[in-house]
Amino acid sequence: MQPTTIHMNLAIDGDRLLADFEELSQIGGTPDGGVNRLALSPEDLQARAWFADKIEEAGLLLRDDDAGNLSGVLPAADPRARTLLIGSHLDTVPMGGRFDGALGILAGLEVLRTIREAGLVLPLHLEVIDFTDDEGAWRSLFGVRALAGLATLEDLDFDEGGFRAALKRAGIEPRSVFHARRDPDTLAAYLELHIEQGSRLERAGQTIGIVTDIVGRINYEVCFHGQPGHSGTTDMYRRRDALRGAALFITRAHDLIRERYGDGIFNCGNVDVRPGMFNVIPSEACLIFEVRHVAPALLAEMETALVGLARECAAKNGLEVDIRFVQARPAASMSPVCMHAIETACVHLGASCMALASYSGHAAQITSHITPSGMIFIPSVDGISHHPGEFSHWGDVVAGANVLLHAALNLSLTL
Amino acid sequence: MQPTTIHMNLAIDGDRLLADFEELSQIGGTPDGGVNRLALSPEDLQARAWFADKIEEAGLLLRDDDAGNLSGVLPAADPRARTLLIGSHLDTVPMGGRFDGALGILAGLEVLRTIREAGLVLPLHLEVIDFTDDEGAWRSLFGVRALAGLATLEDLDFDEGGFRAALKRAGIEPRSVFHARRDPDTLAAYLELHIEQGSRLERAGQTIGIVTDIVGRINYEVCFHGQPGHSGTTDMYRRRDALRGAALFITRAHDLIRERYGDGIFNCGNVDVRPGMFNVIPSEACLIFEVRHVAPALLAEMETALVGLARECAAKNGLEVDIRFVQARPAASMSPVCMHAIETACVHLGASCMALASYSGHAAQITSHITPSGMIFIPSVDGISHHPGEFSHWGDVVAGANVLLHAALNLSLTL
Repeated sequence: MQPTTIHMNLAIDGDRLLADFEELSQIGGTPDGGVNRLALSPEDLQARAWFADKIEEAGLLLRDDDAGNLSGVLPAADPRARTLLIGSHLDTVPMGGRFDGALGILAGLEVLRTIREAGLVLPLHLEVIDFTDDEGAWRSLFGVRALAGLATLEDLDFDEGGFRAALKRAGIEPRSVFHARRDPDTLAAYLELHIEQGSRLERAGQTIGIVTDIVGRINYEVCFHGQPGHSGTTDMYRRRDALRGAALFITRAHDLIRERYGDGIFNCGNVDVRPGMFNVIPSEACLIFEVRHVAPALLAEMETALVGLARECAAKNGLEVDIRFVQARPAASMSPVCMHAIETACVHLGASCMALASYSGHAAQITSHITPSGMIFIPSVDGISHHPGEFSHWGDVVAGANVLLHAALNLSLTL
Repeated sequence: MQPTTIHMNLAIDGDRLLADFEELSQIGGTPDGGVNRLALSPEDLQARAWFADKIEEAGLLLRDDDAGNLSGVLPAADPRARTLLIGSHLDTVPMGGRFDGALGILAGLEVLRTIREAGLVLPLHLEVIDFTDDEGAWRSLFGVRALAGLATLEDLDFDEGGFRAALKRAGIEPRSVFHARRDPDTLAAYLELHIEQGSRLERAGQTIGIVTDIVGRINYEVCFHGQPGHSGTTDMYRRRDALRGAALFITRAHDLIRERYGDGIFNCGNVDVRPGMFNVIPSEACLIFEVRHVAPALLAEMETALVGLARECAAKNGLEVDIRFVQARPAASMSPVCMHAIETACVHLGASCMALASYSGHAAQITSHITPSGMIFIPSVDGISHHPGEFSHWGDVVAGANVLLHAALNLSLTL
């Protein structure tokens, strides 16, 4: 099929998208303009019900799978056609923003509505899909991993029943989540529109980011164990202060990653100290750290260096240390076919664009194992994300949604 | 009055003291052999009721004051006589041990019983006193500061009503606590028996510690404020990570105190991190630190150095920092008269003894402002305290109680 004038001139309805965006932002909305919509929470379930209504209002087919992933489908003429997935997530981090995830779902819905209303019938099924627990309130990227056949029993049992119970309360049968796996042969590609959550586009003055790679991430939990004691009377030279070990680790880990791995990322978001009283020597200090790198070899090197550093900081302070691997998300490369479809859309629409790596994890990282995947970024003001202050200019949102529309059309015509 | 044979041969009843100790240990007792009896908690109030019963069973006069301090009194012949106070506390730190505080009260009670049963009438009133909230579940050393006329409105209002409500629930009228002040002219001296909570006596193989000075202590709260952000996407070189500032401060503060102030003490028992998620850059990290030194000039120098260090660690990480003075307990010297009375008792009883400074705060630190004060330490096994593993050998407890008895007799005959 050749591009037609109808295809070329198609554009999403920015006002309708904005109305949806404002409605959805209310669900779990916080007084400071943010959103608190944790996966499987009442707010998340309410957002999914709202999304289901929108799918039906738009005349799309409503579909859900055994992992709770929720879709609207615009069918191709041939029922045996493959599917172009357009995905993201309705859940948020605790006290997060309005754009992260929600934008990708709403833009996907708007793309399907626009194509349907233009009366186009494409050679691929188009499916906009909300993935269950992308942000990891329970298990990050759970729904998309189930779809890709990469969910495990460990995902269900990591917390001794809490996650299973939450799934059941949401009407999802834990034993059946593995049935959500989709046969890769039924899929044509995966596209996702997302905010950058960084400030490279903004600083470069570009509207669209074409993602080349998604960063790999590894998490460890490190618990330093010492000896509690009275803060005044225990000899300073005989103390085994667990927090001192943790503080040294955090300090040196930040320095190490900055000094040796320029493009690497280290974060430690919390320390849990026991007994936690100002006048007692800390006997236990537990932290979770994460490292990210686009290059798998460097990520592995960072991992080795930090595990060694944790042991060194413990030994230096006479502490025991438990180092527990939590999870890893390997780095993923986006498909050249998808990148080309996105770039072609940008050129066609006159939207400035640049290639960049994603330093945040996304469902596309998982789908890339089973189908060609691509991601479109739009600028985040000041790079703020996972925070109520998360913001993108509406003009960029509309530009991004139109790039998504035309990238989907391009892929439909080429795949 | 000259020492008599009755005086010289008097000894406390170790079995009765042990029976009391075991009964009291049950009140707020924890399965691991510790005690959780926070000031003004139901457990604390139950311990006070138990103590009141013991006072009356022993034929002593029961007395309480407007700050909730609870006493048993063995009156002198002359009602205008001054009072020798023997004090400590029934409250514990959270999940503390059985000895800290409780021992001083029970030994004091046993001393009064022993003297009363011997039919001695002394030229001083003897008063065993439990001070309200010594450990600071609300405000540390509150009861003894009220008695010394050193309680303030800030003590009542530091927490917007919680402490006032707790006092009222315990039958103490907050407005009246200042009436607990005792005229120093009515007091002769103050004695306290306590576990060392350190390991100097044990390492020196000595039974009794004669306290020369009580360490001064200063507490500050330090809050580092940065900028939250997505842990992956925020440029590593533009991060304002509050926990990184706090970790650097903790690391460098420990090093600084060890390197420059050999006898100084530094502790940081907790860090409270917001938002506290592993994949969000910490925007706030608050900690309370304390420094202790026996020498006031060096304590002041440590304080200045640490406040400067907090500012430096903030600036180095692009953070704001709030540094809030919380409280100070100046160092205090024990009275030579009391030290001499204790040493004489040790010599008389054949108990080995050594002079030492106390690195923990005690009520004697406050009473020393209004009356000659002295403290008797007994060894803590492994120096463990503020922990269920707190332990002292019973032979040392009995020796300490007998030293307390004879020190009190010595003071009664000399003051």
